[in-house]
Amino acid sequence: MQPGLRTVQGVFTDVLSNVVKHPLHVEGSGRTDAGVHAIGQVISAKVHCSIPAEKWPIALNTRLPNDLCVREAEMMPDDFHARFSAVGKTYRYTVDRGKVPDIFLHRYAFHHPRRLNLPLMYEASQYLIGTHDFTSFCGASSPVDDKVRTIYSITLIEEGQLLHLYCTGNGFLYNMVRILAGTLLQVGVGRWKPEHIVEMLRQKNRTKAGITAPAHGLSLWQVYYDRQQLDRFVSSFGM
Amino acid sequence: MQPGLRTVQGVFTDVLSNVVKHPLHVEGSGRTDAGVHAIGQVISAKVHCSIPAEKWPIALNTRLPNDLCVREAEMMPDDFHARFSAVGKTYRYTVDRGKVPDIFLHRYAFHHPRRLNLPLMYEASQYLIGTHDFTSFCGASSPVDDKVRTIYSITLIEEGQLLHLYCTGNGFLYNMVRILAGTLLQVGVGRWKPEHIVEMLRQKNRTKAGITAPAHGLSLWQVYYDRQQLDRFVSSFGM
Repeated sequence: MQPGLRTVQGVFTDVLSNVVKHPLHVEGSGRTDAGVHAIGQVISAKVHCSIPAEKWPIALNTRLPNDLCVREAEMMPDDFHARFSAVGKTYRYTVDRGKVPDIFLHRYAFHHPRRLNLPLMYEASQYLIGTHDFTSFCGASSPVDDKVRTIYSITLIEEGQLLHLYCTGNGFLYNMVRILAGTLLQVGVGRWKPEHIVEMLRQKNRTKAGITAPAHGLSLWQVYYDRQQLDRFVSSFGM
Repeated sequence: MQPGLRTVQGVFTDVLSNVVKHPLHVEGSGRTDAGVHAIGQVISAKVHCSIPAEKWPIALNTRLPNDLCVREAEMMPDDFHARFSAVGKTYRYTVDRGKVPDIFLHRYAFHHPRRLNLPLMYEASQYLIGTHDFTSFCGASSPVDDKVRTIYSITLIEEGQLLHLYCTGNGFLYNMVRILAGTLLQVGVGRWKPEHIVEMLRQKNRTKAGITAPAHGLSLWQVYYDRQQLDRFVSSFGM
Protein backbone atom coordinates (compact mmCIF):
# COMPACT_ATOMS: atom_id res chain seq x y z
CA MET A 1 0.00 0.00 0.00
CA GLN A 2 1.26 3.47 -0.83
CA PRO A 3 -0.96 6.51 -0.26
CA GLY A 4 -2.21 7.94 -3.54
CA LEU A 5 -0.52 5.23 -5.66
CA ARG A 6 -2.04 2.25 -7.47
CA THR A 7 -0.45 -0.88 -5.98
CA VAL A 8 -1.08 -4.61 -6.39
CA GLN A 9 -1.94 -4.84 -2.69
CA GLY A 10 -4.34 -1.91 -2.99
CA VAL A 11 -6.17 -3.31 -6.01
CA PHE A 12 -6.51 -6.76 -4.41
CA THR A 13 -7.75 -5.28 -1.14
CA ASP A 14 -10.50 -3.39 -2.99
CA VAL A 15 -11.55 -6.30 -5.18
CA LEU A 16 -11.44 -8.96 -2.44
CA SER A 17 -13.30 -6.89 0.17
CA ASN A 18 -15.87 -6.08 -2.50
CA VAL A 19 -16.51 -9.78 -3.11
CA VAL A 20 -16.65 -10.89 0.54
CA LYS A 21 -18.35 -7.68 1.81
CA HIS A 22 -16.11 -7.22 4.81
CA PRO A 23 -12.86 -5.35 5.44
CA LEU A 24 -9.72 -7.48 5.26
CA HIS A 25 -5.94 -7.32 5.16
CA VAL A 26 -4.15 -8.60 2.04
CA GLU A 27 -0.58 -9.83 2.59
CA GLY A 28 1.82 -10.38 -0.32
CA SER A 29 4.93 -12.58 -0.21
CA GLY A 30 6.95 -9.39 -0.48
CA ARG A 31 7.07 -6.00 -2.15
CA THR A 32 8.25 -5.42 -5.67
CA ASP A 33 9.64 -2.09 -6.92
CA ALA A 34 7.61 -0.03 -9.38
CA GLY A 35 8.13 -1.51 -12.86
CA VAL A 36 8.98 -5.01 -11.60
CA HIS A 37 6.63 -7.78 -12.74
CA ALA A 38 5.39 -10.86 -10.93
CA ILE A 39 4.33 -14.11 -12.51
CA GLY A 40 4.33 -16.10 -9.26
CA GLN A 41 3.33 -13.62 -6.56
CA VAL A 42 1.41 -15.15 -3.66
CA ILE A 43 -1.09 -13.30 -1.48
CA SER A 44 -3.01 -14.39 1.60
CA ALA A 45 -6.07 -12.98 3.32
CA LYS A 46 -8.55 -14.17 5.93
CA VAL A 47 -12.05 -14.15 4.45
CA HIS A 48 -15.49 -15.16 5.66
CA CYS A 49 -17.09 -16.46 2.53
CA SER A 50 -18.64 -19.65 1.18
CA ILE A 51 -17.07 -19.50 -2.30
CA PRO A 52 -15.05 -22.74 -2.74
CA ALA A 53 -11.31 -22.26 -3.42
CA GLU A 54 -11.48 -23.48 -7.02
CA LYS A 55 -14.02 -20.76 -7.91
CA TRP A 56 -11.88 -17.88 -6.62
CA PRO A 57 -9.73 -17.35 -9.73
CA ILE A 58 -12.74 -16.74 -11.99
CA ALA A 59 -14.62 -14.72 -9.35
CA LEU A 60 -11.62 -12.41 -8.99
CA ASN A 61 -10.42 -12.32 -12.60
CA THR A 62 -13.74 -11.00 -13.86
CA ARG A 63 -13.30 -8.06 -11.46
CA LEU A 64 -9.54 -7.46 -11.74
CA PRO A 65 -8.01 -5.04 -14.29
CA ASN A 66 -6.28 -6.59 -17.32
CA ASP A 67 -2.77 -6.34 -15.89
CA LEU A 68 -3.53 -8.48 -12.83
CA CYS A 69 -4.86 -12.00 -12.67
CA VAL A 70 -5.21 -14.90 -10.28
CA ARG A 71 -3.92 -18.27 -11.47
CA GLU A 72 -4.77 -20.48 -8.50
CA ALA A 73 -6.40 -20.28 -5.09
CA GLU A 74 -6.10 -22.63 -2.14
CA MET A 75 -7.59 -22.87 1.33
CA MET A 76 -4.73 -22.78 3.84
CA PRO A 77 -4.30 -23.48 7.57
CA ASP A 78 -5.05 -20.51 9.84
CA ASP A 79 -1.39 -19.78 10.52
CA PHE A 80 -0.41 -19.47 6.84
CA HIS A 81 0.99 -16.07 5.87
CA ALA A 82 2.11 -15.27 2.30
CA ARG A 83 5.27 -13.57 3.58
CA PHE A 84 6.22 -15.21 6.86
CA SER A 85 5.52 -18.79 5.72
CA ALA A 86 7.75 -18.46 2.61
CA VAL A 87 11.01 -20.44 2.70
CA GLY A 88 12.46 -19.14 -0.57
CA LYS A 89 11.90 -17.28 -3.79
CA THR A 90 13.04 -17.30 -7.39
CA TYR A 91 13.41 -14.09 -9.38
CA ARG A 92 14.06 -13.96 -13.12
CA TYR A 93 16.01 -11.14 -14.73
CA THR A 94 15.62 -10.97 -18.52
CA VAL A 95 18.11 -9.34 -20.85
CA ASP A 96 17.36 -8.73 -24.55
CA ARG A 97 20.74 -9.15 -26.27
CA GLY A 98 19.44 -8.39 -29.76
CA LYS A 99 21.04 -5.61 -31.77
CA VAL A 100 17.45 -4.53 -32.28
CA PRO A 101 15.19 -5.17 -29.27
CA ASP A 102 12.17 -7.46 -29.47
CA ILE A 103 9.59 -4.67 -29.44
CA PHE A 104 6.85 -6.86 -27.92
CA LEU A 105 9.12 -7.45 -24.90
CA HIS A 106 10.31 -3.89 -24.33
CA ARG A 107 8.41 -3.70 -21.02
CA TYR A 108 9.73 -7.08 -19.77
CA ALA A 109 13.36 -7.28 -20.88
CA PHE A 110 16.37 -4.98 -20.43
CA HIS A 111 17.80 -4.20 -23.85
CA HIS A 112 21.57 -4.68 -23.62
CA PRO A 113 23.03 -5.21 -27.09
CA ARG A 114 26.70 -5.47 -26.01
CA ARG A 115 28.31 -8.88 -26.43
CA LEU A 116 28.25 -10.96 -23.22
CA ASN A 117 30.77 -13.60 -22.22
CA LEU A 118 28.50 -16.23 -20.64
CA PRO A 119 31.23 -18.51 -19.24
CA LEU A 120 32.66 -15.55 -17.29
CA MET A 121 29.18 -14.64 -16.03
CA TYR A 122 28.63 -18.24 -14.96
CA GLU A 123 31.95 -18.30 -13.12
CA ALA A 124 31.11 -15.03 -11.33
CA SER A 125 27.70 -16.35 -10.32
CA GLN A 126 29.34 -19.26 -8.49
CA TYR A 127 31.02 -16.82 -6.06
CA LEU A 128 27.59 -15.41 -5.15
CA ILE A 129 26.02 -18.76 -4.29
CA GLY A 130 25.90 -19.63 -0.61
CA THR A 131 25.39 -17.67 2.62
CA HIS A 132 26.98 -14.21 2.53
CA ASP A 133 26.58 -10.71 3.89
CA PHE A 134 25.13 -9.02 0.80
CA THR A 135 25.58 -5.41 2.00
CA SER A 136 27.42 -4.56 -1.24
CA PHE A 137 24.42 -5.87 -3.18
CA CYS A 138 21.75 -4.01 -1.24
CA GLY A 139 20.20 -0.65 -2.17
CA ALA A 140 21.87 1.89 0.14
CA SER A 141 18.56 3.22 1.47
CA SER A 142 17.45 -0.15 2.89
CA PRO A 143 16.46 0.01 6.57
CA VAL A 144 17.23 -3.71 7.13
CA ASP A 145 20.01 -4.49 9.63
CA ASP A 146 20.77 -8.12 8.96
CA LYS A 147 22.07 -8.37 5.41
CA VAL A 148 23.03 -12.02 5.49
CA ARG A 149 21.10 -14.07 2.94
CA THR A 150 21.54 -17.44 1.25
CA ILE A 151 21.50 -17.83 -2.52
CA TYR A 152 20.80 -21.43 -3.53
CA SER A 153 21.28 -21.08 -7.27
CA ILE A 154 21.87 -18.66 -10.10
CA THR A 155 21.18 -20.07 -13.54
CA LEU A 156 21.67 -18.53 -16.98
CA ILE A 157 19.23 -19.68 -19.66
CA GLU A 158 19.44 -18.55 -23.27
CA GLU A 159 16.22 -18.25 -25.27
CA GLY A 160 17.06 -16.86 -28.69
CA GLN A 161 18.21 -13.28 -28.27
CA LEU A 162 17.01 -13.33 -24.65
CA LEU A 163 19.14 -14.26 -21.68
CA HIS A 164 17.33 -15.14 -18.45
CA LEU A 165 19.05 -15.11 -15.06
CA TYR A 166 17.12 -17.19 -12.53
CA CYS A 167 18.15 -16.44 -8.97
CA THR A 168 16.83 -18.55 -6.07
CA GLY A 169 17.44 -17.75 -2.42
CA ASN A 170 15.91 -17.75 1.04
CA GLY A 171 15.19 -14.04 0.78
CA PHE A 172 16.42 -10.94 -1.01
CA LEU A 173 17.39 -7.45 0.11
CA TYR A 174 16.17 -4.20 -1.45
CA ASN A 175 17.29 -4.08 -5.12
CA MET A 176 19.47 -7.16 -4.54
CA VAL A 177 18.54 -9.13 -7.66
CA ARG A 178 18.83 -6.02 -9.84
CA ILE A 179 22.32 -5.34 -8.45
CA LEU A 180 23.33 -9.01 -8.91
CA ALA A 181 22.10 -8.85 -12.51
CA GLY A 182 23.84 -5.52 -13.17
CA THR A 183 27.10 -6.83 -11.71
CA LEU A 184 26.98 -10.08 -13.71
CA LEU A 185 26.32 -8.08 -16.89
CA GLN A 186 29.36 -5.94 -16.16
CA VAL A 187 31.44 -9.09 -15.68
CA GLY A 188 30.01 -10.29 -18.99
CA VAL A 189 31.33 -7.24 -20.84
CA GLY A 190 34.75 -7.50 -19.19
CA ARG A 191 34.59 -4.75 -16.57
CA TRP A 192 35.66 -7.15 -13.80
CA LYS A 193 37.10 -10.63 -13.53
CA PRO A 194 34.74 -13.23 -12.02
CA GLU A 195 36.84 -13.66 -8.88
CA HIS A 196 36.47 -9.95 -8.10
CA ILE A 197 33.02 -10.87 -6.70
CA VAL A 198 34.80 -12.19 -3.58
CA GLU A 199 36.30 -8.76 -2.98
CA MET A 200 32.93 -7.03 -3.56
CA LEU A 201 31.26 -9.22 -0.94
CA ARG A 202 34.14 -8.69 1.54
CA GLN A 203 33.98 -4.88 1.34
CA LYS A 204 30.32 -4.66 2.48
CA ASN A 205 29.92 -1.38 0.59
CA ARG A 206 27.26 -0.75 -2.04
CA THR A 207 29.62 1.34 -4.18
CA LYS A 208 31.92 -1.67 -4.70
CA ALA A 209 29.40 -3.79 -6.64
CA GLY A 210 27.93 -3.14 -10.10
CA ILE A 211 25.05 -1.07 -11.37
CA THR A 212 21.41 -1.64 -10.46
CA ALA A 213 19.89 -3.15 -13.61
CA PRO A 214 16.58 -1.49 -14.60
CA ALA A 215 13.38 -2.63 -12.88
CA HIS A 216 11.48 -3.64 -16.02
CA GLY A 217 13.71 -6.70 -16.70
CA LEU A 218 12.85 -8.24 -13.33
CA SER A 219 10.03 -10.66 -12.50
CA LEU A 220 9.20 -12.40 -9.25
CA TRP A 221 9.05 -15.92 -10.63
CA GLN A 222 8.06 -18.28 -7.81
CA VAL A 223 7.62 -18.33 -4.05
CA TYR A 224 8.20 -21.55 -2.09
CA TYR A 225 6.39 -22.67 1.04
CA ASP A 226 8.08 -25.98 1.62
CA ARG A 227 11.69 -27.09 1.35
CA GLN A 228 10.96 -29.97 -1.03
CA GLN A 229 9.41 -27.68 -3.61
CA LEU A 230 12.42 -25.38 -3.33
CA ASP A 231 14.91 -28.25 -3.58
CA ARG A 232 13.14 -29.56 -6.68
CA PHE A 233 13.45 -26.18 -8.38
CA VAL A 234 17.11 -25.75 -7.48
CA SER A 235 18.04 -29.26 -8.57
CA SER A 236 16.00 -29.12 -11.77
CA PHE A 237 18.41 -26.42 -12.89
CA GLY A 238 21.17 -28.98 -12.52
CA MET A 239 23.25 -27.19 -9.91
CA MET B 1 -0.87 11.93 -38.27
CA GLN B 2 -3.74 12.97 -36.03
CA PRO B 3 -3.83 16.46 -34.49
CA GLY B 4 -3.02 16.36 -30.77
CA LEU B 5 -2.43 12.58 -30.74
CA ARG B 6 0.83 10.63 -30.50
CA THR B 7 1.07 8.51 -33.67
CA VAL B 8 3.80 6.34 -35.16
CA GLN B 9 3.94 8.62 -38.21
CA GLY B 10 4.23 11.69 -35.99
CA VAL B 11 7.05 10.28 -33.87
CA PHE B 12 9.00 9.13 -36.95
CA THR B 13 8.55 12.48 -38.66
CA ASP B 14 10.00 14.28 -35.62
CA VAL B 15 12.93 11.91 -35.12
CA LEU B 16 13.86 11.59 -38.81
CA SER B 17 13.68 15.31 -39.57
CA ASN B 18 15.76 15.92 -36.47
CA VAL B 19 18.50 13.62 -37.78
CA VAL B 20 18.57 14.92 -41.37
CA LYS B 21 17.85 18.56 -40.44
CA HIS B 22 15.23 19.15 -43.11
CA PRO B 23 11.46 18.79 -43.24
CA LEU B 24 10.21 15.55 -44.76
CA HIS B 25 7.14 13.44 -45.29
CA VAL B 26 7.00 9.98 -43.70
CA GLU B 27 4.77 7.43 -45.46
CA GLY B 28 3.70 4.20 -43.75
CA SER B 29 2.46 1.10 -45.57
CA GLY B 30 -0.93 1.79 -44.04
CA ARG B 31 -2.67 3.00 -40.93
CA THR B 32 -3.32 0.84 -37.89
CA ASP B 33 -6.11 1.49 -35.37
CA ALA B 34 -5.23 2.65 -31.87
CA GLY B 35 -4.12 -0.39 -29.86
CA VAL B 36 -3.02 -2.42 -32.89
CA HIS B 37 0.66 -3.43 -32.96
CA ALA B 38 3.09 -3.70 -35.85
CA ILE B 39 6.10 -5.97 -36.03
CA GLY B 40 6.62 -5.52 -39.77
CA GLN B 41 5.48 -1.97 -40.54
CA VAL B 42 7.38 -0.31 -43.40
CA ILE B 43 7.90 3.43 -43.78
CA SER B 44 9.48 5.44 -46.58
CA ALA B 45 10.81 9.00 -46.70
CA LYS B 46 12.98 11.03 -49.05
CA VAL B 47 16.04 12.26 -47.17
CA HIS B 48 19.15 14.23 -48.10
CA CYS B 49 21.74 12.67 -45.88
CA SER B 50 25.06 10.86 -46.14
CA ILE B 51 24.37 8.24 -43.44
CA PRO B 52 24.68 4.81 -45.14
CA ALA B 53 21.56 2.61 -45.01
CA GLU B 54 23.05 0.05 -42.61
CA LYS B 55 23.69 2.76 -39.98
CA TRP B 56 20.11 4.03 -39.95
CA PRO B 57 18.65 1.50 -37.46
CA ILE B 58 21.11 2.44 -34.72
CA ALA B 59 20.97 6.16 -35.51
CA LEU B 60 17.20 6.09 -35.15
CA ASN B 61 16.84 3.57 -32.32
CA THR B 62 18.96 5.65 -29.95
CA ARG B 63 16.49 8.51 -30.51
CA LEU B 64 13.20 6.59 -30.64
CA PRO B 65 11.06 5.91 -27.55
CA ASN B 66 11.13 2.35 -26.14
CA ASP B 67 7.92 1.25 -27.84
CA LEU B 68 9.18 1.94 -31.38
CA CYS B 69 12.22 0.55 -33.11
CA VAL B 70 13.72 0.17 -36.55
CA ARG B 71 14.85 -3.32 -37.56
CA GLU B 72 16.25 -2.67 -41.03
CA ALA B 73 16.81 0.17 -43.46
CA GLU B 74 17.36 0.06 -47.22
CA MET B 75 18.06 2.57 -49.95
CA MET B 76 15.24 2.31 -52.52
CA PRO B 77 14.61 3.57 -56.07
CA ASP B 78 13.09 7.06 -56.27
CA ASP B 79 9.64 5.78 -57.10
CA PHE B 80 9.36 3.50 -54.06
CA HIS B 81 6.48 4.34 -51.75
CA ALA B 82 5.79 2.34 -48.56
CA ARG B 83 2.07 2.28 -49.30
CA PHE B 84 1.63 2.39 -53.07
CA SER B 85 4.44 -0.05 -53.85
CA ALA B 86 3.05 -2.74 -51.52
CA VAL B 87 1.57 -5.82 -53.21
CA GLY B 88 0.29 -7.56 -50.09
CA LYS B 89 0.25 -7.75 -46.32
CA THR B 90 0.03 -10.29 -43.56
CA TYR B 91 -1.73 -9.53 -40.30
CA ARG B 92 -1.64 -11.77 -37.25
CA TYR B 93 -4.50 -11.97 -34.78
CA THR B 94 -3.58 -13.63 -31.46
CA VAL B 95 -6.08 -15.25 -29.12
CA ASP B 96 -5.14 -16.38 -25.60
CA ARG B 97 -7.27 -19.48 -25.01
CA GLY B 98 -6.03 -20.08 -21.46
CA LYS B 99 -8.54 -20.31 -18.62
CA VAL B 100 -6.22 -17.81 -16.97
CA PRO B 101 -4.61 -15.34 -19.41
CA ASP B 102 -0.84 -15.13 -19.86
CA ILE B 103 -0.41 -11.88 -17.96
CA PHE B 104 2.76 -10.88 -19.87
CA LEU B 105 0.73 -10.98 -23.10
CA HIS B 106 -2.38 -9.13 -21.95
CA ARG B 107 -1.59 -6.21 -24.25
CA TYR B 108 -0.91 -8.44 -27.30
CA ALA B 109 -3.47 -11.24 -27.15
CA PHE B 110 -7.27 -11.30 -26.89
CA HIS B 111 -8.22 -13.41 -23.88
CA HIS B 112 -10.98 -15.75 -25.02
CA PRO B 113 -11.21 -18.77 -22.69
CA ARG B 114 -14.19 -20.45 -24.43
CA ARG B 115 -13.44 -23.74 -26.15
CA LEU B 116 -12.79 -23.33 -29.89
CA ASN B 117 -13.45 -25.93 -32.57
CA LEU B 118 -10.43 -25.44 -34.84
CA PRO B 119 -11.55 -27.72 -37.70
CA LEU B 120 -14.76 -25.65 -38.02
CA MET B 121 -12.74 -22.41 -37.97
CA TYR B 122 -10.42 -23.80 -40.64
CA GLU B 123 -13.38 -24.79 -42.80
CA ALA B 124 -14.94 -21.33 -42.44
CA SER B 125 -11.64 -19.65 -43.33
CA GLN B 126 -11.62 -21.48 -46.67
CA TYR B 127 -14.81 -19.64 -47.73
CA LEU B 128 -13.06 -16.31 -47.13
CA ILE B 129 -10.04 -17.06 -49.31
CA GLY B 130 -10.15 -15.61 -52.81
CA THR B 131 -11.48 -12.40 -54.36
CA HIS B 132 -14.71 -11.18 -52.77
CA ASP B 133 -16.67 -8.05 -51.99
CA PHE B 134 -15.89 -7.77 -48.27
CA THR B 135 -18.56 -5.13 -47.45
CA SER B 136 -19.91 -7.35 -44.65
CA PHE B 137 -16.41 -7.47 -43.17
CA CYS B 138 -15.71 -3.74 -43.31
CA GLY B 139 -16.25 -1.22 -40.49
CA ALA B 140 -19.46 0.62 -41.38
CA SER B 141 -17.83 4.06 -41.19
CA SER B 142 -15.29 3.31 -43.94
CA PRO B 143 -15.27 5.91 -46.72
CA VAL B 144 -13.84 3.44 -49.28
CA ASP B 145 -16.09 2.65 -52.29
CA ASP B 146 -14.47 -0.44 -53.79
CA LYS B 147 -14.70 -3.19 -51.20
CA VAL B 148 -13.38 -5.99 -53.37
CA ARG B 149 -10.19 -7.50 -51.96
CA THR B 150 -8.28 -10.76 -52.40
CA ILE B 151 -7.32 -12.95 -49.45
CA TYR B 152 -4.51 -15.33 -50.37
CA SER B 153 -4.37 -17.35 -47.17
CA ILE B 154 -5.72 -17.65 -43.65
CA THR B 155 -3.72 -19.94 -41.41
CA LEU B 156 -4.34 -21.04 -37.83
CA ILE B 157 -1.25 -21.77 -35.76
CA GLU B 158 -1.38 -23.06 -32.18
CA GLU B 159 1.38 -22.07 -29.78
CA GLY B 160 0.55 -23.48 -26.35
CA GLN B 161 -2.50 -21.66 -25.05
CA LEU B 162 -2.20 -19.11 -27.86
CA LEU B 163 -3.91 -19.37 -31.22
CA HIS B 164 -2.56 -17.18 -34.02
CA LEU B 165 -4.59 -16.37 -37.14
CA TYR B 166 -2.32 -15.26 -40.00
CA CYS B 167 -4.23 -13.51 -42.74
CA THR B 168 -2.52 -12.56 -46.02
CA GLY B 169 -4.14 -10.50 -48.75
CA ASN B 170 -3.57 -7.82 -51.34
CA GLY B 171 -5.06 -5.20 -49.04
CA PHE B 172 -7.51 -4.91 -46.16
CA LEU B 173 -10.50 -2.69 -45.44
CA TYR B 174 -11.10 -0.76 -42.22
CA ASN B 175 -11.38 -3.24 -39.31
CA MET B 176 -11.46 -6.12 -41.81
CA VAL B 177 -8.99 -8.47 -40.06
CA ARG B 178 -10.61 -7.82 -36.69
CA ILE B 179 -14.04 -8.67 -38.13
CA LEU B 180 -12.64 -11.79 -39.86
CA ALA B 181 -11.10 -12.87 -36.55
CA GLY B 182 -14.27 -12.12 -34.59
CA THR B 183 -16.38 -14.05 -37.10
CA LEU B 184 -14.04 -17.08 -37.10
CA LEU B 185 -14.07 -17.11 -33.29
CA GLN B 186 -17.87 -17.13 -33.33
CA VAL B 187 -17.81 -20.05 -35.78
CA GLY B 188 -15.33 -21.71 -33.38
CA VAL B 189 -17.81 -21.52 -30.48
CA GLY B 190 -20.69 -22.82 -32.62
CA ARG B 191 -22.62 -19.61 -33.33
CA TRP B 192 -22.63 -20.28 -37.10
CA LYS B 193 -21.83 -23.18 -39.40
CA PRO B 194 -18.73 -22.64 -41.57
CA GLU B 195 -20.73 -22.48 -44.82
CA HIS B 196 -22.73 -19.53 -43.44
CA ILE B 197 -19.72 -17.39 -44.46
CA VAL B 198 -20.95 -17.62 -48.06
CA GLU B 199 -24.23 -16.01 -47.05
CA MET B 200 -22.44 -13.29 -45.04
CA LEU B 201 -20.34 -12.34 -48.06
CA ARG B 202 -23.39 -12.36 -50.35
CA GLN B 203 -25.43 -10.00 -48.19
CA LYS B 204 -22.86 -7.15 -48.33
CA ASN B 205 -24.07 -5.84 -44.98
CA ARG B 206 -21.82 -5.29 -41.96
CA THR B 207 -24.50 -6.47 -39.53
CA LYS B 208 -24.51 -9.95 -41.10
CA ALA B 209 -20.91 -10.84 -40.12
CA GLY B 210 -19.49 -11.39 -36.63
CA ILE B 211 -18.12 -9.11 -33.95
CA THR B 212 -15.08 -6.88 -34.35
CA ALA B 213 -12.41 -8.60 -32.25
CA PRO B 214 -10.54 -6.16 -29.94
CA ALA B 215 -7.65 -4.14 -31.38
CA HIS B 216 -4.97 -5.33 -28.95
CA GLY B 217 -4.87 -8.88 -30.39
CA LEU B 218 -3.92 -7.60 -33.85
CA SER B 219 -0.43 -7.05 -35.30
CA LEU B 220 0.63 -5.97 -38.76
CA TRP B 221 3.03 -8.82 -39.41
CA GLN B 222 4.64 -8.26 -42.80
CA VAL B 223 4.33 -6.07 -45.90
CA TYR B 224 5.34 -7.41 -49.31
CA TYR B 225 6.84 -5.43 -52.18
CA ASP B 226 7.29 -8.18 -54.71
CA ARG B 227 5.10 -11.07 -55.72
CA GLN B 228 7.76 -13.72 -55.13
CA GLN B 229 8.19 -12.75 -51.50
CA LEU B 230 4.42 -12.88 -51.07
CA ASP B 231 4.10 -16.25 -52.83
CA ARG B 232 6.85 -17.68 -50.62
CA PHE B 233 4.99 -16.61 -47.48
CA VAL B 234 1.66 -17.98 -48.69
CA SER B 235 3.13 -21.31 -49.79
CA SER B 236 5.29 -21.71 -46.67
CA PHE B 237 2.02 -21.99 -44.75
CA GLY B 238 1.19 -24.96 -46.94
CA MET B 239 -2.00 -23.70 -48.53
